[in-house]
Amino acid sequence: MKPYPSAPDIMKGIPKGFKLSVASAGIKYRNRSDMALIFSEAEASAAGVFTTNRVKAAPVVIDAKRVRSGRGRAIVVNSGNANACTGNPGLEDAREMCSLAGAGLGVPSNRVYVCSTGVIGVPMPMQRVRKAMEPLVQDLGKAGLEDAARAIMTTDSFPKFLTRKLTVEGKRATVTALCKGAGMIEPNMATMLCFVMTDLAIVPKALDAALRLASEGSFNRITVDGDMSTNDTVLALANGMAGNKPLAVRSEGFQVFQKALSGMLYDLAKMMVRDGEGATKLVEIEVVGAKNNAEALRGAKAVANSLLVKTAIFGSDPNWGRIIAALGYSGIALRESRTDISFGRTKVVKGGLYTGKSGAAELKKKEIKITCTLGLGKGSARVLTCDLTHDYVTINAEYTT
Amino acid sequence: MKPYPSAPDIMKGIPKGFKLSVASAGIKYRNRSDMALIFSEAEASAAGVFTTNRVKAAPVVIDAKRVRSGRGRAIVVNSGNANACTGNPGLEDAREMCSLAGAGLGVPSNRVYVCSTGVIGVPMPMQRVRKAMEPLVQDLGKAGLEDAARAIMTTDSFPKFLTRKLTVEGKRATVTALCKGAGMIEPNMATMLCFVMTDLAIVPKALDAALRLASEGSFNRITVDGDMSTNDTVLALANGMAGNKPLAVRSEGFQVFQKALSGMLYDLAKMMVRDGEGATKLVEIEVVGAKNNAEALRGAKAVANSLLVKTAIFGSDPNWGRIIAALGYSGIALRESRTDISFGRTKVVKGGLYTGKSGAAELKKKEIKITCTLGLGKGSARVLTCDLTHDYVTINAEYTT
Repeated sequence: MKPYPSAPDIMKGIPKGFKLSVASAGIKYRNRSDMALIFSEAEASAAGVFTTNRVKAAPVVIDAKRVRSGRGRAIVVNSGNANACTGNPGLEDAREMCSLAGAGLGVPSNRVYVCSTGVIGVPMPMQRVRKAMEPLVQDLGKAGLEDAARAIMTTDSFPKFLTRKLTVEGKRATVTALCKGAGMIEPNMATMLCFVMTDLAIVPKALDAALRLASEGSFNRITVDGDMSTNDTVLALANGMAGNKPLAVRSEGFQVFQKALSGMLYDLAKMMVRDGEGATKLVEIEVVGAKNNAEALRGAKAVANSLLVKTAIFGSDPNWGRIIAALGYSGIALRESRTDISFGRTKVVKGGLYTGKSGAAELKKKEIKITCTLGLGKGSARVLTCDLTHDYVTINAEYTT
Repeated sequence: MKPYPSAPDIMKGIPKGFKLSVASAGIKYRNRSDMALIFSEAEASAAGVFTTNRVKAAPVVIDAKRVRSGRGRAIVVNSGNANACTGNPGLEDAREMCSLAGAGLGVPSNRVYVCSTGVIGVPMPMQRVRKAMEPLVQDLGKAGLEDAARAIMTTDSFPKFLTRKLTVEGKRATVTALCKGAGMIEPNMATMLCFVMTDLAIVPKALDAALRLASEGSFNRITVDGDMSTNDTVLALANGMAGNKPLAVRSEGFQVFQKALSGMLYDLAKMMVRDGEGATKLVEIEVVGAKNNAEALRGAKAVANSLLVKTAIFGSDPNWGRIIAALGYSGIALRESRTDISFGRTKVVKGGLYTGKSGAAELKKKEIKITCTLGLGKGSARVLTCDLTHDYVTINAEYTT
């Protein structure tokens, strides 16, 4: 397969001054692209949010340090190998990927970010990676969003990218994000990579604030299997080519950008859950009336992560007992006699007791909303998850071998 | 089916002064026994350990209060209905079960304990339960351990019971336990019921101490799916008919009893994991060299509860990356460069790096030992778990319906 199968209008949705390319390095996969390069013609503000796993992949270690500069020009990404648990050689490999890209692009290597996703603990096949670097640089501008989103997929079943157009201080601007992620996705983001590009001018501090807020409300609110990866990364580059005055925190333009970014990342997070490994249903768990927001989130995550709840949803089994049990062991304040549970608009439990309406029809839908009302306070939270299916087991029982 | 299919030597393994019976009330299941009665001819010391879920089933609420007396005569148990999330009517039903049994047995109802396991949120079909009470009382002595263990099964695929003979202060005594539990089993015990009977004389305080210690080292160290039920109960009755002087904490006899009880409950816990819903493999996760025991336990549980680890084990995939990732997100102190991981005796990771030995052969076994050495301190912990399989999904997608 050629690296550029799609794209009649290759630049569609790509913000001004950004160019993309992909390459087939053969890192793990055959007959598909497995590397991507994102390049900004002008130096950009940069911000990043990274995994909180104590075991951090080499690229995460490097990017987290590098992003303190608040500047960036390029991101080089590969799928098929996570470059995690690879020790010092892994760090050297990640650095080499940056310097090769930097040399090819004619930019300092400390302005280049690197991201990897795939299998853990296997040294990066650097010979293949090196060979792919030249075409990656030469082909800049030949790949569209979809091509790049495809190149970074692992167990994803579809590429994920979104674009929003907005007007900020009279200037037309574009915000675009592409990401990958399907399994291993949990509260604090996991094996998910997301790259945000915008031609807005934004001061690094404001970009960082916006990215953190948007990640918190999106990727940190989804859970497929509760595992958190060593590689999770959200990176943003804002190159200012829209020509606006750089946005600072609290400016009106910042609010517009923030809202667009948050909405976009939430929609991408939803795509990831919908693409949860083997998932057949998208489930939104909302807890309201908790003592506070933190407790609401803890309760919602306990329900979202319960295997018994997730398998019940797969089987369209309106088993509300498992939901109240999960709330019960989450450790949050709970009064059975004040607890209501609804499936969609059907109130199944009122004051801790079964209403006689099973809500079974709601559970047969492809998108399910479960609301738990605790009647204790004003805390609320919303978490996205999916069902646990036979295909999840199949996919994950056979990943490395 | 008749309630008493087995048992040529019906009293085998039952401590002196205890009698068992079972009945087929038809609470949920057809053609099988679903109630059991345990009766002690002499008033016994009693102790109990209960679920820490904030949502507690009616029987748990009643037993937890009742056990403060330190005394007991009987335990009435049903499967098929958990009597959980049933409000005040549920509490009344549980009380009625005690008073019916008490009246039949001629003992005060506050010396009778009640346990239920099964579906949540459905009122107990009391008419059927009432009808079964008379045969239950009349048939005392007709059921063996296996019959009683079978009567309390839900998704269990085999009955679980064990007996130990011991000599305490020159007296021959018997300690016996029967239990049920397969799915929904996690750190703090879940949908597991366990009944310990002994003819030893033990002061209630000592019985309580022994039971807590033994539960902590057994049922609280197993995890099938991380959920914790509303009904978990471990009850012990010690009727003193062995004729020894009542054992107090720290006595020599107490140590003998404690050791026997702890060993027995650990073995029962192992049976439960082996019977984990759909499980094909028994997995022991040991973390050593953690900063302290609490951190070791937290790390071991994170690994044991990781869906990615559990599915990998099902597929015999030696995916150590998922293990180190789970340790990483557990939040415990961890230094990649000091971490070793072994499958059985094969060291797969040394100092955070792959040794080149995959350990794949170890993962094909039916009993798997995974050791994580952190090199940070003297903390250690051991957790039992099982793999996550297609059958787990099937069983739990179809439980209530």
